[in-house]
Amino acid sequence: MAALFRGSRNLLLRWNKHVDLAFVLSRSMASKTPVGFVGLGNMGSPMAKNLLRNGYPVIATDVFPESCKELQETGAQVVDTPADVAEKADRIITMLPSSPNVIEVYTGPNGILKKVKKGTLLIDSSTIDPAVSKEMALAAEKMGAVFMDAPVSGGVGAASMAKLTFMVGGVEEEYNAAQELLTCMGANVVYCGQVGTGQAAKICNNMLLAIGMIGTAETMNLGIRLGLDPKLLAKILNMSSGRCWSSDSYNPVPGVMEGVPSANNYQGGFGTTLMAKDLGLAQNTATNTKTPVPLGSLAHQIFRVMCSRGYANKDFSSVFQFLREEESQ
Amino acid sequence: MAALFRGSRNLLLRWNKHVDLAFVLSRSMASKTPVGFVGLGNMGSPMAKNLLRNGYPVIATDVFPESCKELQETGAQVVDTPADVAEKADRIITMLPSSPNVIEVYTGPNGILKKVKKGTLLIDSSTIDPAVSKEMALAAEKMGAVFMDAPVSGGVGAASMAKLTFMVGGVEEEYNAAQELLTCMGANVVYCGQVGTGQAAKICNNMLLAIGMIGTAETMNLGIRLGLDPKLLAKILNMSSGRCWSSDSYNPVPGVMEGVPSANNYQGGFGTTLMAKDLGLAQNTATNTKTPVPLGSLAHQIFRVMCSRGYANKDFSSVFQFLREEESQ
Amino acid sequence: MAALFRGSRNLLLRWNKHVDLAFVLSRSMASKTPVGFVGLGNMGSPMAKNLLRNGYPVIATDVFPESCKELQETGAQVVDTPADVAEKADRIITMLPSSPNVIEVYTGPNGILKKVKKGTLLIDSSTIDPAVSKEMALAAEKMGAVFMDAPVSGGVGAASMAKLTFMVGGVEEEYNAAQELLTCMGANVVYCGQVGTGQAAKICNNMLLAIGMIGTAETMNLGIRLGLDPKLLAKILNMSSGRCWSSDSYNPVPGVMEGVPSANNYQGGFGTTLMAKDLGLAQNTATNTKTPVPLGSLAHQIFRVMCSRGYANKDFSSVFQFLREEESQ
Amino acid sequence: MAALFRGSRNLLLRWNKHVDLAFVLSRSMASKTPVGFVGLGNMGSPMAKNLLRNGYPVIATDVFPESCKELQETGAQVVDTPADVAEKADRIITMLPSSPNVIEVYTGPNGILKKVKKGTLLIDSSTIDPAVSKEMALAAEKMGAVFMDAPVSGGVGAASMAKLTFMVGGVEEEYNAAQELLTCMGANVVYCGQVGTGQAAKICNNMLLAIGMIGTAETMNLGIRLGLDPKLLAKILNMSSGRCWSSDSYNPVPGVMEGVPSANNYQGGFGTTLMAKDLGLAQNTATNTKTPVPLGSLAHQIFRVMCSRGYANKDFSSVFQFLREEESQ
Repeated sequence: MAALFRGSRNLLLRWNKHVDLAFVLSRSMASKTPVGFVGLGNMGSPMAKNLLRNGYPVIATDVFPESCKELQETGAQVVDTPADVAEKADRIITMLPSSPNVIEVYTGPNGILKKVKKGTLLIDSSTIDPAVSKEMALAAEKMGAVFMDAPVSGGVGAASMAKLTFMVGGVEEEYNAAQELLTCMGANVVYCGQVGTGQAAKICNNMLLAIGMIGTAETMNLGIRLGLDPKLLAKILNMSSGRCWSSDSYNPVPGVMEGVPSANNYQGGFGTTLMAKDLGLAQNTATNTKTPVPLGSLAHQIFRVMCSRGYANKDFSSVFQFLREEESQ
Repeated sequence: MAALFRGSRNLLLRWNKHVDLAFVLSRSMASKTPVGFVGLGNMGSPMAKNLLRNGYPVIATDVFPESCKELQETGAQVVDTPADVAEKADRIITMLPSSPNVIEVYTGPNGILKKVKKGTLLIDSSTIDPAVSKEMALAAEKMGAVFMDAPVSGGVGAASMAKLTFMVGGVEEEYNAAQELLTCMGANVVYCGQVGTGQAAKICNNMLLAIGMIGTAETMNLGIRLGLDPKLLAKILNMSSGRCWSSDSYNPVPGVMEGVPSANNYQGGFGTTLMAKDLGLAQNTATNTKTPVPLGSLAHQIFRVMCSRGYANKDFSSVFQFLREEESQ
Repeated sequence: MAALFRGSRNLLLRWNKHVDLAFVLSRSMASKTPVGFVGLGNMGSPMAKNLLRNGYPVIATDVFPESCKELQETGAQVVDTPADVAEKADRIITMLPSSPNVIEVYTGPNGILKKVKKGTLLIDSSTIDPAVSKEMALAAEKMGAVFMDAPVSGGVGAASMAKLTFMVGGVEEEYNAAQELLTCMGANVVYCGQVGTGQAAKICNNMLLAIGMIGTAETMNLGIRLGLDPKLLAKILNMSSGRCWSSDSYNPVPGVMEGVPSANNYQGGFGTTLMAKDLGLAQNTATNTKTPVPLGSLAHQIFRVMCSRGYANKDFSSVFQFLREEESQ
Repeated sequence: MAALFRGSRNLLLRWNKHVDLAFVLSRSMASKTPVGFVGLGNMGSPMAKNLLRNGYPVIATDVFPESCKELQETGAQVVDTPADVAEKADRIITMLPSSPNVIEVYTGPNGILKKVKKGTLLIDSSTIDPAVSKEMALAAEKMGAVFMDAPVSGGVGAASMAKLTFMVGGVEEEYNAAQELLTCMGANVVYCGQVGTGQAAKICNNMLLAIGMIGTAETMNLGIRLGLDPKLLAKILNMSSGRCWSSDSYNPVPGVMEGVPSANNYQGGFGTTLMAKDLGLAQNTATNTKTPVPLGSLAHQIFRVMCSRGYANKDFSSVFQFLREEESQ
């Protein structure tokens, strides 16, 4: 460990990062000192509880008093603002709905950066535009703090059971410190590269997932129309080059698999609205980097139309139902 | 076996199929009697050779004399027309480029059905419109013969090594007889259902394959633009819900995998023209059955444009290259 | 006129068409001899009545006896089959729902070609695949008859008021003879070129119409969301490069124009099912000629999905409504 | 005029806008006082010259000294920064490439808002995201200034000949003052509504234009493949419901029209890169307002791919060429 840190230090010096090493080292070594947590929603709340379960004192805040109260009852200290969190903790995790919230929580009038201590490690697990992650990292660096993006895959269930996957972007020598905390909340932690690449990995995966899901839905629908048995068709695809996660692990056709949303009227799972949001991020990112994403764009449009046609809160695999002929016709 | 056939006979009688059972039984049991083969192209030629290797006398024909001559040298008997093949064999396999060829070979002036014997088993391994397969089956039934569609997946290499996968559609009681021959030429034989479902399964698989490939290409491209290492991104996708055959077994990004066309300047593999042809079949089938296939349609258009932009003979995974920014820009 | 015919005759000889000129000339000059009419649906019936109004005896048939009876009451002679029509008339117009009907009416067991007289002029006003028109023309030529395709634009109202537009494909020297009849039923008759080009023109126009309509719908929707007044936006588009028929003559947004389906809850007009059918023809034609039509394909998919979501019988401009956010959300 | 201003004043008071009316009135009435101009590129430079021609003293700046020098020689006063312009002029026009430039020029360290005088009228003719226009308007309002967005349609030629069309968004009572200046540079000035609606109108028009152009290109290509003469097909479309600006005023097929880029190897006109940029704005705006724009999205992707395939600097109607089969195939 010491050797590893020596190596990191050299890297830091070589790369000329403006981070005060003395602070970094003192923080990283004091592992059970308090951890700050901002954003106690459906995901953030179970994540914070898992930190408490692992023996970390948690100093938390949220705009909704009820969310704060609930966490307080499980042992967290609640403060008023993100700035207050920053005053009391030198490791802070944020879990927020979208880019504007992240900007507000970090750079707003009561934001973390108003009172952040030098060397503080800031880990943002929100799913946002990687460009915003980069902005936040720059703003943090100016205050002598370190910002990493660490969006998750996995839903509320995975958050409760500490089974999330974290995709982490940021300076490599901070990765160990981040990993120490993230492993309390997740089963997989993957280092992706510079700041923003965690978001990039998340967005890329979900874009390909969306494409595979719509593709599976229209393929299964076509096959059924042509007289194929759905289970047999799924089996053939899964032993062939058409295989994908949506065909073999989350088949959208009712009756093909057990224990997936299609077996339960598309309840639970990953809502169409959330998928549309992630595809919006992918689209913005692709537009801003001038990257053509023809199928990703069309997938975005399809889930967007579905949100307007009554599918907003159903699992995104309900695209199979959306594309089927109505029964009355 | 006898019991199975008795069962089949009952089924046949119950279903009132107009096939003369006496002929069917006599043919199926005489397993090393000659097999007819029409269509000795890149795929048909090695398939016919595998029948010879398995001890079946082969009676073959093709419009190109050179193809005939080559097979003759390996022991086949060559005749002039499909009708001549039908006169001499009561099991015939056809492997042709497209629907019009199949129509000609079966129903043309020198076609198989002009001289087909009652009870003959006709197996078409061409990839064509399932509606044409159904037409051929009806025409064969009128002559007392049985038609099955059995398109393949796998390329020239798989054909040579008898590693093809056959997807078979047709009356179930004939499946055993078909399987006996097809296992000489392939590693997997899958029964899909009524006539045309073999084609349906093939078309469905390739449509989803095309969608997955373009999706993988644009996702990998986006991720690379956002700063992710291609190998790392592929690894993340493959352990997550973005996983598909194109990402984990045939990655389109040079440098990510060995032994795939992307590692060899997109040479070999499955040509863009062939993929465009299969997507055209999928599109026609979807249009005729009024089935929406939004991503399948767009995939078709993309491979069609690629055919016009110099990618016709490259492997279809070259869509990654097609979507990349040109280096000079 | 005589000079023109002399010219035509020379052309005919030069082009080596296998049409017996003596028959052609005798038929074309006898203008008020009976005209055959096959297909007395919503469109065919008013078209046939306009021939009667113009003094032409009409010999008609249809599969529905009621349709025949109604036309009989207005003075037509009704016969049993298309073959019977061919026996009694040497100019025949057909107006049928789709390609299979056309094939049956011309080449079926009781079809026109069973009893067609040499030199008969056959005009098909159905909207079908141009490839089928070409097949019919070849079949007719073998019998010494002349086939032209002449699909219409304009609906039932235009048919009643003889305001249809005919797009005509076929040998140019027959165009005058066709025009004589078509002008009784339509306001515009346009010669498009060889057989099939009438269909091609119709299909092309409707594909671009569909693209323009969806484009207008999504553009108006976006503008409204961005705070623009719909009437003002339509005005700006119509004086700018965004202008198209759907924006300036058939605006899909309720309240922007009077007297269009969007002003009447999308009733009347051109049904989404019919547009989806025409786009299916365009798609098949494009697929078969390997022509990329990315927006045309996507337009097809969108109208196809709309047919499954309750919009089948609404005017196709209801795509505006389909793309709007639902009010309850 | 006086009456009109009295009315405006009442409106202003009623709407409780935080603009100091005394300043507004004094500025608007002094019509030949200096006008500021920031951004002297291909478009800005001829626009500024037209102000000079109309007798307005111009105080200008640009990041490129050569651009400044050129305008100086035609009589403008050149200063160092946007802030310097703001110090000397109470009416300022900005014409910049993209959103980040606008943000910098208005709110940067040497930006207009650093030294803007109360009541100053700020008119931004850049084509940018309407959300940025709204932000700039808010920032200007805080300084007691008024911001309007006034993007143009028309290229460099129209800019030189003062034939631009301006689409103006902002508070209505300032419209007259803006119009006074804009009419020196353009032939049409259209008031669109609140701040950002000028951008919205521009973006909407260009999105529909892009859709119509690609639609026209693929329709013409399909028709030609089906045997139609291009000029005849264009004529048929233009008298029918397929008509649009791209078919009747800017046809993309060489040989159909004179004096358009397709007649000149797609040189001049409106570059594919610029269209891709505008479609990127439309896409971002649609994504952020959750508006489905399926054809607009696909159009964006197509022009984006074209930029990577050598069409970046050709007129956007070269999409016809992009979709054609290559001659060598």
